[in-house]
Amino acid sequence: MKKIYMDYSATTPMKKEVVEAMTPYFTEIFGNASSPHQFGGAPKQALYEAREKVAKTIGAKTDEIFFTAGGTESDNWALNGVVKALRPRGNHIITSAIEHHAILHTANRLEKEGYKVTYLPVDEYGMIRLSDLEEAITEDTALISIMFINNEIGTIQPIKEIGEIAKKHNILFHTDAVQAYGNYPIDVKELNIDMMSMSSHKIYGPKGVGALYVRKGVNLRNFIEGGAQEKNRRAGTENIPGIIGFAKAAEMAHENLEEHIERLTYLRDKLIDGLLSTIDHSRLNGHRTLRHPGNCNISFEYIEGEALLLLLDHYGVSGSSGSACTSGSLDPSHVLMAIGLTHEIAHGSLRLTIGDFTTEEDVDYAIKSLKPVVEKLRSMSPLYNNK
Amino acid sequence: MKKIYMDYSATTPMKKEVVEAMTPYFTEIFGNASSPHQFGGAPKQALYEAREKVAKTIGAKTDEIFFTAGGTESDNWALNGVVKALRPRGNHIITSAIEHHAILHTANRLEKEGYKVTYLPVDEYGMIRLSDLEEAITEDTALISIMFINNEIGTIQPIKEIGEIAKKHNILFHTDAVQAYGNYPIDVKELNIDMMSMSSHKIYGPKGVGALYVRKGVNLRNFIEGGAQEKNRRAGTENIPGIIGFAKAAEMAHENLEEHIERLTYLRDKLIDGLLSTIDHSRLNGHRTLRHPGNCNISFEYIEGEALLLLLDHYGVSGSSGSACTSGSLDPSHVLMAIGLTHEIAHGSLRLTIGDFTTEEDVDYAIKSLKPVVEKLRSMSPLYNNK
Repeated sequence: MKKIYMDYSATTPMKKEVVEAMTPYFTEIFGNASSPHQFGGAPKQALYEAREKVAKTIGAKTDEIFFTAGGTESDNWALNGVVKALRPRGNHIITSAIEHHAILHTANRLEKEGYKVTYLPVDEYGMIRLSDLEEAITEDTALISIMFINNEIGTIQPIKEIGEIAKKHNILFHTDAVQAYGNYPIDVKELNIDMMSMSSHKIYGPKGVGALYVRKGVNLRNFIEGGAQEKNRRAGTENIPGIIGFAKAAEMAHENLEEHIERLTYLRDKLIDGLLSTIDHSRLNGHRTLRHPGNCNISFEYIEGEALLLLLDHYGVSGSSGSACTSGSLDPSHVLMAIGLTHEIAHGSLRLTIGDFTTEEDVDYAIKSLKPVVEKLRSMSPLYNNK
Repeated sequence: MKKIYMDYSATTPMKKEVVEAMTPYFTEIFGNASSPHQFGGAPKQALYEAREKVAKTIGAKTDEIFFTAGGTESDNWALNGVVKALRPRGNHIITSAIEHHAILHTANRLEKEGYKVTYLPVDEYGMIRLSDLEEAITEDTALISIMFINNEIGTIQPIKEIGEIAKKHNILFHTDAVQAYGNYPIDVKELNIDMMSMSSHKIYGPKGVGALYVRKGVNLRNFIEGGAQEKNRRAGTENIPGIIGFAKAAEMAHENLEEHIERLTYLRDKLIDGLLSTIDHSRLNGHRTLRHPGNCNISFEYIEGEALLLLLDHYGVSGSSGSACTSGSLDPSHVLMAIGLTHEIAHGSLRLTIGDFTTEEDVDYAIKSLKPVVEKLRSMSPLYNNK
């Protein structure tokens, strides 16, 4: 049976070089990096080098990188950390309607605690309007948090311009770059980013590890309290093997970033064009060019997305109907609703995300498979037959 | 050069069976456990089985185990989760003066947010007094959090009795069992435990993963918000390889728990007796028998602990002078101060913790090495020479 993975935005397989880099740290170089004895020396040194590697990929200083357990923790830390450090001043956060739930649910929680949150709307491509952002700013605004690249529809936000607006108003700017990191060149200084969330398992690194970039001087309250790890800012014994693997994956992703983007963009466009041209009543969600190089998100009218996903999976192509983190829910994607789709069309959406192990044959096969799958489902749909 | 590791309470090397259990999940069975397609099926099943395995080791139900990024996160979650779920009622927490910093610093933070915290004192062996606990309870007490086994001096608290008192007063009881889990038989129902923190890397499992046991029915606010993982209670893509490794380590630790405890206890007692009998002006910290099977914590008068640690490390024996998480600090250990040691004596303390790879020869060597190390340091000490 065919097994074609097209869900790279949900998670990626680890590269073998990453596994190899981690392996010695499981059983041999296993010491606690905080230990002052000989078993702690090598892990401590490895931790420093890993931090340096990750910092280099985004133009940050080594001591501006804080390792976490993943993108979700980084997002939670950034939002909670800023407003709680500034309390009672600055009780207002600006974010967007299409953020990942790690941001949205954290913002919802902060609202219940008395903070004010503005959720900026987006246009039909999933882009915020800079004029909306400017208008939303008040004297109480402490933080702007806008994701770099959307996980569902792949839209790339005008991050540099957002950074400039934030800087002009002296407001901290956080971006959830979980999808962007390793798929888009990022220089945090050039883009005026104060804080940025990154995840390892989206870039062929291990699960359970990520980082938060925090510009020197940003006043951020700790999220996890305890030991003195991460310069007293994020407690818990350092996950050395995970961090080593993350750093290796980060390094590899940035060694040939342009090539990676070029290759994926070619395959992505082939996939998008192939699907839109062979299947009628289909539309691309997100922006045509300001887009994640591996993201294809298409709505097929008169079809239910979950059924599409299951039948396509039966053909051997594994995609996603929303973001993986929200599967199990019957509500239509908040992102697809925010770009103005109706419930029916949002429900008929499919996300195929490709990555470094995707071949051109895989793309051809996916295009070829989707047509009969869509036709079969439409043939069973009373809506389609009565259209 | 000799390399004898005696810092198992700081962290442990992974067992090879644990690494083998994890390995397929890095590159082959790599899917997101929340994905509904074929790549998500096997990780989801493996996640269920891992949860079942961990649950079994403590007599819990499968759906009472929530995976986290480690013991520190579990501790943060338990404390924050209870008081914030109950707010505005129940703003009082009872804990002890000798908790791990993951508890103490979290409690300190909650005090700053307006909660009340009682830090119970301990006796000379590091044991809380049940009468103190009873007296500290008020109508506002929402949570009692007392660690199972202390990480520095190894003292085992009267957990069952604490659980009974908590139950009698209808107060939730959390225990930080990071040191106890895998080194002491635990049945959460029998011990009346409502929440319990566990860590993987202390029991020969991977770093960066742990769990919080939460008894069904406990009202606990989420700590990390985002996706719907862990039944909507702990967001973030599941760290499947880490969880698989943790479960394997948990299973192995409990397959021969009695034997493990018996073996370690024998070696521990040999180490303690050997040191106390060969080196004068030395005293054991913690309880002689109600003690972690691998913990030896001894104060040597007229000596500075950091120097002792470094010179001993030079002889090839790696121990700890406080808990690893607080190394780098010059303050004497809060645990040693709480059992009544003077600053000077607390500073001259050494923790040697042994584990499954420690041999009898290692113990003999450590005893043999410490005597000249202590003598050398004392020969340089003006205090010793003037005594």
